[in-house]
Amino acid sequence: MIALDHLRHVNAAPARSARERYRAGRIEPTSGVAPGFTQANMIVLPRDWAFDFLLYAQRNPKACPVLDVSDPGSHTTLLAPDADLRKDIPLYRIWRDGTLAEETADATAAWAEHPDLVSFLIGCSFTFETPMVEAGIEIRHMTDKSNVPMYLTNKACRPAGRLHGNMVVSMRPIPASRVSDAATISGRFPAVHGAPVHVGAPEEIGIKDLSKPEFGDPVRIEPGEVPVFWACGVTPQSVIASAKLPFAITHSPGLMLVTDLRNRQLAVL
Amino acid sequence: MIALDHLRHVNAAPARSARERYRAGRIEPTSGVAPGFTQANMIVLPRDWAFDFLLYAQRNPKACPVLDVSDPGSHTTLLAPDADLRKDIPLYRIWRDGTLAEETADATAAWAEHPDLVSFLIGCSFTFETPMVEAGIEIRHMTDKSNVPMYLTNKACRPAGRLHGNMVVSMRPIPASRVSDAATISGRFPAVHGAPVHVGAPEEIGIKDLSKPEFGDPVRIEPGEVPVFWACGVTPQSVIASAKLPFAITHSPGLMLVTDLRNRQLAVL
Repeated sequence: MIALDHLRHVNAAPARSARERYRAGRIEPTSGVAPGFTQANMIVLPRDWAFDFLLYAQRNPKACPVLDVSDPGSHTTLLAPDADLRKDIPLYRIWRDGTLAEETADATAAWAEHPDLVSFLIGCSFTFETPMVEAGIEIRHMTDKSNVPMYLTNKACRPAGRLHGNMVVSMRPIPASRVSDAATISGRFPAVHGAPVHVGAPEEIGIKDLSKPEFGDPVRIEPGEVPVFWACGVTPQSVIASAKLPFAITHSPGLMLVTDLRNRQLAVL
Repeated sequence: MIALDHLRHVNAAPARSARERYRAGRIEPTSGVAPGFTQANMIVLPRDWAFDFLLYAQRNPKACPVLDVSDPGSHTTLLAPDADLRKDIPLYRIWRDGTLAEETADATAAWAEHPDLVSFLIGCSFTFETPMVEAGIEIRHMTDKSNVPMYLTNKACRPAGRLHGNMVVSMRPIPASRVSDAATISGRFPAVHGAPVHVGAPEEIGIKDLSKPEFGDPVRIEPGEVPVFWACGVTPQSVIASAKLPFAITHSPGLMLVTDLRNRQLAVL
């Protein structure tokens, strides 16, 4: 979805220093970290599953906008050339037979189990939070220094090969008068999920209780605010479970890879 | 890159009747046919090559913006549910060991040689010609009823697995005063190659003689006009040759699949 040819000469010191902290073992949600630098979801699969997943992403671009794909066996990405994908995310999840087996701050040992792992880096909605804040739209989980709430919906993604599963969404409460602005601003960033997939009416997408997100933390919804839902890069984790993938490594929801890519390089206007 | 969920209720009679003509054997360049409906490049490969190609497309989104990918063995697409991908393009190319072996109006026999072919439908720049014409920008090859000129450049695409090759570009002469408008209008359509990759200075991208395109027909360039180059969906055909693919079926350059997708469904604004 994006061409990475012009990435070379960016000064990415804030992104690099964040990754160094995480490589040294610090664990924290990354919303608001290194403002202006794009964050990414990660899913790592054996080569045998890579076509199915890349096709799944192609067919579900709102949930899975692919920023980069590593070569089999590599643990690097053009998005952050000096990053080690095994160590530089604050917290990893190791999945076995579709079940979350372990969370760890260092995925090196799990990574070594398979010689041909392919890493998919997927856009993260934290990217458009910065321009939303600049436009005077409060992002509640940033104010409250918590993780964004994420929900498993009843919206089926288009299947691909052996992969199927429902969409995961992130939610931000937005004042009714700013919903249009939030849609417009995020819509400029299709590479990081773009415009909302659903506004209000959580029950229509199978969300019974906003105070009980499947991932992340619940947030306050003030009077006059509407819950606004964006497709979320945690969707692949619902696929891992639904399709019972034999092995996968992912980030932990809300604890992302901080890349050297500038948010503004992803804006379509 | 695009979500196909909302395609269902489009009235696509002009697109359907174009495909019926081509199924019946008519052969013609498709620029200007069924105005308002998106046209697509096609490349069809054995399943063994499908991951490499989808990765190549992901890494080279200007040249290879994927609109849809069929399941292995299928010859249908969501872009035009009643189309038969083996028959509904005016002219096909059959490739063997990286060499163009045959052109044919019906690819059914070649398609039957492999049980697991995967079809990739890739955006075509004819899509943004309609809004450019509406904005008063003349499209020379439409005026002259010829095929768009296409050139093989010296710009290497990012390789993926076993695939590598240089970018192919299409060229339209644009009055110097309208180049910005042409860039802006086409930039709204990233799913069909988006903004130009190069403006003027053809020698910088290895084009020695504009009157000798590798594909399509040469066009007049009037005084005060600048040659403007867009990434082209014929790029996969240079990959087939460079990487010596054992087998492939493609469209013939400029003779595209006419889909049921409306151009405006691809605009980002």
